[in-house]
Amino acid sequence: MPAMGEFDFIGVLGRRLGGIAADRIDLGIGDDAALWTPPPGHSVVACCDTLIAGRHFPDDTDPADIAFKALAVNLSDLAAMAAEPVVALLALSLPTAPTPAWTRAFCAGWADLAGRHGVALAGGDTTAGPVLAMTVTALGLVPVGQALRRDGARAGDDIYVSGCLGDAAGGLALWSRRARPEIAPLAARLARPQPRLALGRALRGVASSAIDVSDGLLADLGHVLAASGVGAELDLERLPLSPALLAATDADQARSWALTGGDDYELCFTAPPERAAALAAAATASGTAVHRIGTIVEGAAVQLRDRGVPTPLPARAGWEHFR
Amino acid sequence: MPAMGEFDFIGVLGRRLGGIAADRIDLGIGDDAALWTPPPGHSVVACCDTLIAGRHFPDDTDPADIAFKALAVNLSDLAAMAAEPVVALLALSLPTAPTPAWTRAFCAGWADLAGRHGVALAGGDTTAGPVLAMTVTALGLVPVGQALRRDGARAGDDIYVSGCLGDAAGGLALWSRRARPEIAPLAARLARPQPRLALGRALRGVASSAIDVSDGLLADLGHVLAASGVGAELDLERLPLSPALLAATDADQARSWALTGGDDYELCFTAPPERAAALAAAATASGTAVHRIGTIVEGAAVQLRDRGVPTPLPARAGWEHFR
Repeated sequence: MPAMGEFDFIGVLGRRLGGIAADRIDLGIGDDAALWTPPPGHSVVACCDTLIAGRHFPDDTDPADIAFKALAVNLSDLAAMAAEPVVALLALSLPTAPTPAWTRAFCAGWADLAGRHGVALAGGDTTAGPVLAMTVTALGLVPVGQALRRDGARAGDDIYVSGCLGDAAGGLALWSRRARPEIAPLAARLARPQPRLALGRALRGVASSAIDVSDGLLADLGHVLAASGVGAELDLERLPLSPALLAATDADQARSWALTGGDDYELCFTAPPERAAALAAAATASGTAVHRIGTIVEGAAVQLRDRGVPTPLPARAGWEHFR
Repeated sequence: MPAMGEFDFIGVLGRRLGGIAADRIDLGIGDDAALWTPPPGHSVVACCDTLIAGRHFPDDTDPADIAFKALAVNLSDLAAMAAEPVVALLALSLPTAPTPAWTRAFCAGWADLAGRHGVALAGGDTTAGPVLAMTVTALGLVPVGQALRRDGARAGDDIYVSGCLGDAAGGLALWSRRARPEIAPLAARLARPQPRLALGRALRGVASSAIDVSDGLLADLGHVLAASGVGAELDLERLPLSPALLAATDADQARSWALTGGDDYELCFTAPPERAAALAAAATASGTAVHRIGTIVEGAAVQLRDRGVPTPLPARAGWEHFR
C-alpha cells in the first residue's frame, strides 16, 4: 500500500478520531488552534508527556498500543490531579511516511482510550523526524480549589497506592517472552496502562496529596516528600504485587520492580488516618483497589521496613534521564 | 562545566523561567500538571507545534534563538486565532545532557519572548532523545465567539498579509553567509520570528478569516480557501518584499520565496472591502504594517496575476512533510 503524505495523514486522523467527544469542544482539528470553553467554576489542568520509540516503549510495540499509551500517560497525570480529561493535542514525529495499516492501528488504539474517557482530539502537529516520537498534551477540568497536589502530605498521613506495582517493569524485562500466557498480563500492563481517572476524581476532598507512579514508586513518592517537606516509612510486605508478577519471577525481584520500576501509572496518594473510611468509600465507588503501604513522617528520608525491620534502600531509586 | 541531570535541568528552568507571568496561573512547574483558571466569558485556544534540529532550524542555531522560535511559532498560531497567550508547556528532548551554558542561553531566549507577552511556563517534560526536539503547547484566551478561523473567507473579501514575506526563506537559503550585514536581517527573521499577537487581537470583529504563514503563503492561503470553499486572485506586484530581501537577491527569487517559502509567521487574513477603514485602524493600533495582496473569488483555484496578466503557479506551492 502506498505511504501517505502529511495532509492525507492528518485528514485520516480527523475523520477517524475527530468525532470522539467533539461536542465537548468548539473547534477541533483543522485550524491554527483548537477552541474550548471551560464551564465556570473550574480550573484547567494541563500537562504534556513525550514518548520516544525505543526509550519509552519497545520498538516492536503495536502501533495501537503506542497510541493508547501516549494518551494514557497524560490522562494519568490528570488523574493524579483529580481532574476530568476533555481535550488532547497530538504532536507526532514519524521517521517514514505512515502506511494506511499503521495509521488504522494507531487510530484504533487512540480511539479505544479516548472514547472510554470522552477525550476530544482537538489538534496537534505532524512532522518528519529521525525516530517515532509523540508529545501528547492533555487538558482537563477540576472544580476550583479541588485539585490534588504533591505538596499536601503531612506527618501522620497514611500512604496508599492503587492497583499493583511492578507489573510494567516485569513486562519490559520479560518483553521477549510476552507471547507466553504467564508473561502476557505483564506486557499488557506495560503496553496499555490504565489511567486511574475515576479514582483520582473520587479522591477530591479525601486525599491530601497525589502523584502517578511513572518513574517508580520511590522516585515518585520522593517528589511528594520533597514538595511537602516530609519523610516516609514504607512497609515492604504491604507492597501490592500481582499474582501474575509473582508467577513470573521471585519475590525479591518482584519487590524490586515494585519499588523502582516505572510505567505502572497507578496513583500514590496520602490521606489522614481519620479519612480512612472516606478513602475506602472512594476506592469502592471508583471500582479501584487501593492499598495502604506506609506512613508519612517528619523529616525528609524514606525508611523501608520489612515486617517492622529496617531495610536498606535500593541503590537506584528510579528513572532519571541523562544519568 | 559538568553536564546536568534531568531534575537539575528542570530545576534551573523553574528558577529562571517559572517566575514569568506566574501570577496568571494557579500552579506551575513541579506537579503532575499545571492549574489555570480562565476568566468567565472566554474560550481557551490551544495549539502545539514541534521543532526538530536540522529540520525546522539549522543545527548551528543559537540555543537562545531555538527557544525563542519554539515559543514564537506557537504564539503565532494563537495570533492567527486572535487570542491572547497565557500558558505554555515545553516538552524537550535532548541528545546529550545540557551544559549550564546551553541551558542559560536557552532560558534567555525563552524569557525574552515569554516576558514580552506575559506567557507563563507552567510545565512540560524533559527526556533524552536522538536529536534536539521541542514540542511547545500554547494556551490562550479569546472572548467567546471572537476567534478568527480559517473558514470565514467569502467571495469579494480582500486578502491581506502583515509585514513582509520571503525574508525567512532567504535567511535559510543564505544561512552560511548570515554574518554579512546584508544577510543578517534575513537570518534574524528566520531565527526569531515575531508573532503578530497585537494585530491578531486588533482583527477581532474586523477580519473574516486568518491563518499564520508558516508553510508558505500559497500553502497557508490554500488552507483558508479549502476551509472556506472559495478561490483567490493574488496580485504578484503587491507582495510585500523587504528592502533587505531585495538587496540580497533578485526580484524573481524574492517573489518565489515570498510565495512558497515558509517560516515568516506573518498573518494572512481576509476582510470584506467595507471594513477596509476598520482594518487600517486595527493595523495602526497594533503598530503592524498590512498589505492588500488580492481578492477572494468564487471557485477553488488560486490565480496569480502580474500587473493584471495571469501568471502560472510555482510547481511546488509549499512545505509538506513526508513528500
